[in-house]
Amino acid sequence: MRSPLHDILAPTGIAVVGASSDPTKRGYKAMVGLIKDGFSGDIYPVNPKADMILGIKAWPSIAEIPGNPELALICTPAASVPGLIAECGRRGIKGAVILASGFAEMSEEGADLEREMMAKAEAHGVRVIGPNTSGVFNLHHRLNLLALDNVKPGDVGIISQSGNMLLSLALEAQHNGQVGFSTYVGPGNQSDIGFNDYLRYLGEDEHTRVATLYVEGFRDGRRFLEVARDVTAMKPVVVYKSGSTEAGQKAASSHTGSLAGSYAMTVDLLRQAGVSVVQHSDEILPVAEGLGLLQKARGKRVAVVSDGGGQATIASDRLAEAGLELAELSEATRQKLRDVLIPQASTVNPVDVAGSTDANPSLLATCMEIVAADDNVDSVFLVGMFGGYSLRFAESLLGDEMRGAEAMVDLSKATDKPLVIYSLYTPIKPPPLRRLHEAGLPIYASIEHAVRVLTALGERGDYLSLAETYPREPALLPKSELGEMFTRARAEGRDLFEYEAKQLLREHGIEVPREIVARSETELDEAAATFVDTPLAMKVVSKDILHKSDAGGVKLNLVGEAALRRAREEIFASCRAYDAQAEVEGVLVAPMAKKGVEVIVGVIRDPIFGPVLMFGLGGIFVEILEDVAFRSIPLSRHDARSMVEQIKARKILEGARGEPAVDKEALVELLLTVARIADAYPQLAELDLNPVIVNADGYAVVDARVIVEREFATDAKEPAA
Amino acid sequence: MRSPLHDILAPTGIAVVGASSDPTKRGYKAMVGLIKDGFSGDIYPVNPKADMILGIKAWPSIAEIPGNPELALICTPAASVPGLIAECGRRGIKGAVILASGFAEMSEEGADLEREMMAKAEAHGVRVIGPNTSGVFNLHHRLNLLALDNVKPGDVGIISQSGNMLLSLALEAQHNGQVGFSTYVGPGNQSDIGFNDYLRYLGEDEHTRVATLYVEGFRDGRRFLEVARDVTAMKPVVVYKSGSTEAGQKAASSHTGSLAGSYAMTVDLLRQAGVSVVQHSDEILPVAEGLGLLQKARGKRVAVVSDGGGQATIASDRLAEAGLELAELSEATRQKLRDVLIPQASTVNPVDVAGSTDANPSLLATCMEIVAADDNVDSVFLVGMFGGYSLRFAESLLGDEMRGAEAMVDLSKATDKPLVIYSLYTPIKPPPLRRLHEAGLPIYASIEHAVRVLTALGERGDYLSLAETYPREPALLPKSELGEMFTRARAEGRDLFEYEAKQLLREHGIEVPREIVARSETELDEAAATFVDTPLAMKVVSKDILHKSDAGGVKLNLVGEAALRRAREEIFASCRAYDAQAEVEGVLVAPMAKKGVEVIVGVIRDPIFGPVLMFGLGGIFVEILEDVAFRSIPLSRHDARSMVEQIKARKILEGARGEPAVDKEALVELLLTVARIADAYPQLAELDLNPVIVNADGYAVVDARVIVEREFATDAKEPAA
Repeated sequence: MRSPLHDILAPTGIAVVGASSDPTKRGYKAMVGLIKDGFSGDIYPVNPKADMILGIKAWPSIAEIPGNPELALICTPAASVPGLIAECGRRGIKGAVILASGFAEMSEEGADLEREMMAKAEAHGVRVIGPNTSGVFNLHHRLNLLALDNVKPGDVGIISQSGNMLLSLALEAQHNGQVGFSTYVGPGNQSDIGFNDYLRYLGEDEHTRVATLYVEGFRDGRRFLEVARDVTAMKPVVVYKSGSTEAGQKAASSHTGSLAGSYAMTVDLLRQAGVSVVQHSDEILPVAEGLGLLQKARGKRVAVVSDGGGQATIASDRLAEAGLELAELSEATRQKLRDVLIPQASTVNPVDVAGSTDANPSLLATCMEIVAADDNVDSVFLVGMFGGYSLRFAESLLGDEMRGAEAMVDLSKATDKPLVIYSLYTPIKPPPLRRLHEAGLPIYASIEHAVRVLTALGERGDYLSLAETYPREPALLPKSELGEMFTRARAEGRDLFEYEAKQLLREHGIEVPREIVARSETELDEAAATFVDTPLAMKVVSKDILHKSDAGGVKLNLVGEAALRRAREEIFASCRAYDAQAEVEGVLVAPMAKKGVEVIVGVIRDPIFGPVLMFGLGGIFVEILEDVAFRSIPLSRHDARSMVEQIKARKILEGARGEPAVDKEALVELLLTVARIADAYPQLAELDLNPVIVNADGYAVVDARVIVEREFATDAKEPAA
Repeated sequence: MRSPLHDILAPTGIAVVGASSDPTKRGYKAMVGLIKDGFSGDIYPVNPKADMILGIKAWPSIAEIPGNPELALICTPAASVPGLIAECGRRGIKGAVILASGFAEMSEEGADLEREMMAKAEAHGVRVIGPNTSGVFNLHHRLNLLALDNVKPGDVGIISQSGNMLLSLALEAQHNGQVGFSTYVGPGNQSDIGFNDYLRYLGEDEHTRVATLYVEGFRDGRRFLEVARDVTAMKPVVVYKSGSTEAGQKAASSHTGSLAGSYAMTVDLLRQAGVSVVQHSDEILPVAEGLGLLQKARGKRVAVVSDGGGQATIASDRLAEAGLELAELSEATRQKLRDVLIPQASTVNPVDVAGSTDANPSLLATCMEIVAADDNVDSVFLVGMFGGYSLRFAESLLGDEMRGAEAMVDLSKATDKPLVIYSLYTPIKPPPLRRLHEAGLPIYASIEHAVRVLTALGERGDYLSLAETYPREPALLPKSELGEMFTRARAEGRDLFEYEAKQLLREHGIEVPREIVARSETELDEAAATFVDTPLAMKVVSKDILHKSDAGGVKLNLVGEAALRRAREEIFASCRAYDAQAEVEGVLVAPMAKKGVEVIVGVIRDPIFGPVLMFGLGGIFVEILEDVAFRSIPLSRHDARSMVEQIKARKILEGARGEPAVDKEALVELLLTVARIADAYPQLAELDLNPVIVNADGYAVVDARVIVEREFATDAKEPAA
């Protein structure tokens, strides 16, 4: 179904409730915006105290409007809003933009008012943008309710929870002149329409080539991720998420009503959905611009063409830091470069023309053409002073430079590889750069910003090809006896026993070392007979003892029947001493785990984003260094692989300090299966495999804990994947 | 002694060797630069083929020049340079700027030519700038050998190994108009004058308020650090060091003749010397500008005043990421804010005026005044749309906004706390921002850049006060018997034995667990009698066995005389099997180390930077995560402390996972003493204490290795501190 926002944001008529002739009022600004931009539909100022506003007939109330506007802009104070929404509904108005603040973001009373407003909106079938929104524009429909000067229609759609951020982007765009905008919406409190709806609309909007979002908080993060997956398959989505630190989260939560969630998790999940996450606010526009113009690169191998060693080095540093590669140029490519450049030039990437272009700047375009033709190259990065040769050297070079610019424009049309240009002359835009700019080549004044764009292009290319190759893995078929195990545990008001958790894993194909629950001495003897010639571990089984080690409930390296019996007695004794009331079922006996790297695999159900898989190395890596990766469930095989590659300590898995590399594919399989289990059993609230020992031969789940969902109703269903 | 560069860079006359009337030649450009900028001294074009160049009489050779120029600009090809240098010297010219490339940076023949040139320069007393330099300007003396248009005289001195970087900074400065420049030098190959000399000159130069360096490689890094220490005590020094990654280093080393060194170490050592290290090229100018204008803040506690929640959050995120603090405003301050703001405003830092200023933007200045008066505040950061109120809301607000700007200017004069301003209207510079700008308040178009400036200001303030409180600790007095120990080892062609290394430490007050070298069975029995009731460790003593564990030369947890004897036999046997030729002196016996955190303390003598102390956590932290801190020796107590605070894994030292915190002060004492020992014994080439076990009770040096300087001559002296 097409988003209802299309009708609301491209109305044939608009009611401006609270329209005013007072230049300090928003109801004046909006009228000016509509009139100045030449809104082609009907404008109905509503103001009981005026006959005409800015030359347009005003109406005393919404009810008395003669036409059929689809949209109302409500500029009046919060208290008046619920009543006006009802009036809108009765008049057949489909959507209302509510500017007023003083709702849930402010106080409990405000929250009550917001609920009242939403009740009216639902009863009368009115969709609400806001409240507490900075406004809306749709420049391709000349609907400019913010009355922003100097924004020009273009490809970039923006949803921003900060009005100042929109202003800042608009001023930057005006000043650098590279881009224009399609639609803007300030979602405000998102009491009705949220980020996911706006994103879907931008995805469908034919005028938008890149969706750009400034987010303080999501309401329904899981739904947002699903929409983002759909939209990123068609066009780039850029998100800046504020509140990356505790200080920022504190600052943010005093301004929005929404939960903030963990920043690191949010970034991981957004990237999993193909979103280009931007982490500095001054990179939002450059990245949106670059993605809007160039869409994607095939991959991350960049060829740098430069006319200065220093800046080639800076570019190389930034590319490497961003995880991009300097493409390895083929010998044929290098020979072609040698044919056109002076001997001092470097034909190893970064290509440095070393003075070859001083009298012949169009040679830079030739070099770009040569490297763009190399199969090892995914994108081309021109670095240096192109555009300024005639200013720096001799005016006579202008003709040659213009020819170079023309050749670059031709190249951009002939190749699907992005051409990204940093020129130190960008701030003064000499004619060759103006030509490139008009032809839609992105030109940056900062190497750092240009590299950020190349990164986003490469990541997007990788994402698209990987998303196609690796579909998300479906949930496993749940087994009824395991479902009953959950039901039993919930009935008994407890979580799964460790052996039950392990049974859940084992039944779905996860390798869990064989272990035996010995409830009696006889069973213990049987266990001893089963595991011969291998040292054993023994742990207490009791629903009342959560921290087994603390209770003295764990014994390691036991050899022989006698040792087992003694260990069992000691465990019972110390557990009794630890908690006399604890009901002890018996002990769990299993061979000692082999040596390897300790990792942690976990599942949580995040209040914003739903089921999430977590992976990290055990101990300090998770607890102190917070070196963990998150993915939304369900996930693809590539998602699982990328979790293992993402953590900083991955080198430890690759065989540090003389140890052999671990079996990464087995680990990936484990991650996938855990995710598929979590997907299959909504009764599973949390899962924690800590530790899992990974080594060259595979993995061993040493400890498993499953928290049972208390609120679970048997007929409940998880949100559809 | 005053730098000789003052005379060279402010000459009363200049010879332009290779002056030309051909607009494509550097010898033309330089003439134009001198003439256009109105150089007040004498200009002597030297060209055997011309009588006049650009209206100035030309001379056939340097010898025939009538006056006494101090400086020669040599624009001719490399091969001609040695001869011309000699001519300059004979004519009494003190300095020569050599533009030609084709020296050591290019080839072996070039390196020979460079040596020939330097021999002439030394023989004739001519100081050389370059070769392979992009040139020189000294705008306060109207000496503009680069013929750069549109650079205005100002406070920022620049030394850049990349000519393009200078061009880029000049264009940026021209475009943003905030700063002007004092002196520029391209050091080129630094064959005579190096970064340290240029920095000393900028430190002394009265026109330079901030020294800014773009460095690809240092020649004499140790000397540079010393000069930097002196200069940063007087004025800020900003360094961008290129080659932060392997890719970048590769790109850089193909362009300069100098060794690159480890980037992480270089950054640590520069910061230790008070340098403001910038890691993005687009932050060089903003940081230089901000430090030039504001010099320093008292500390890192920032008060944010904002008129938009979104950007306040971004600012908070960036401040926290940069290690700055949101100042905790006093109750009195908050009350004063409440008195002037509407109730919806947030008076907790970040202060958000929440609409209070919509009709009254000068209130922002009032808020800045209020927070600037708070003792808990070190700097004030205005974030939002100041300067654009009259554009965004009503033109009538311009008067109030100008009054606000005036109040900010007054405040900047009345307080020593830096005021830093981010305005989203910066790109279009409306009148209130122009006013601030003219008054020397730094205004940024990017929150990120503004925070980078606040960080540099805070770090500089901290550095200055700490440098004063904590002088560098002097070398220890070397002991003659320990000196003899080194001499003996060198004579025997070996490094120190472990017990000798430990003796070196012990004699200088470092706690090394008592241990006994047992050369015979009798001595072993004595050792057993000495250490009763404690498990012991035993290690082989042999100059031929470096990797004791590999050779089976280590046994742990030995209890009782019998166990000791058996262990000794086993060690001897496996060491014989490992290396039949190895000479085994005996075994080292010591109590097992107590539990704790393993750390590594090391000393290296870096070819560029000289003696450097290294600290990190043991094992994977050093080897895989490269989480280490470096400081140049000698160091201060604060330097040692900051090493411990710098590592990412510091939380482990603070007592992770239920362990008590380690005794950090003992660790600091250890670091200091190791550094003082390295300072005292130049015979010590490298030192490696790995591991040192640190716990709540102190530390224990478990293993110590000292590499002996082979090249050491007894009369050699280390570079003076």
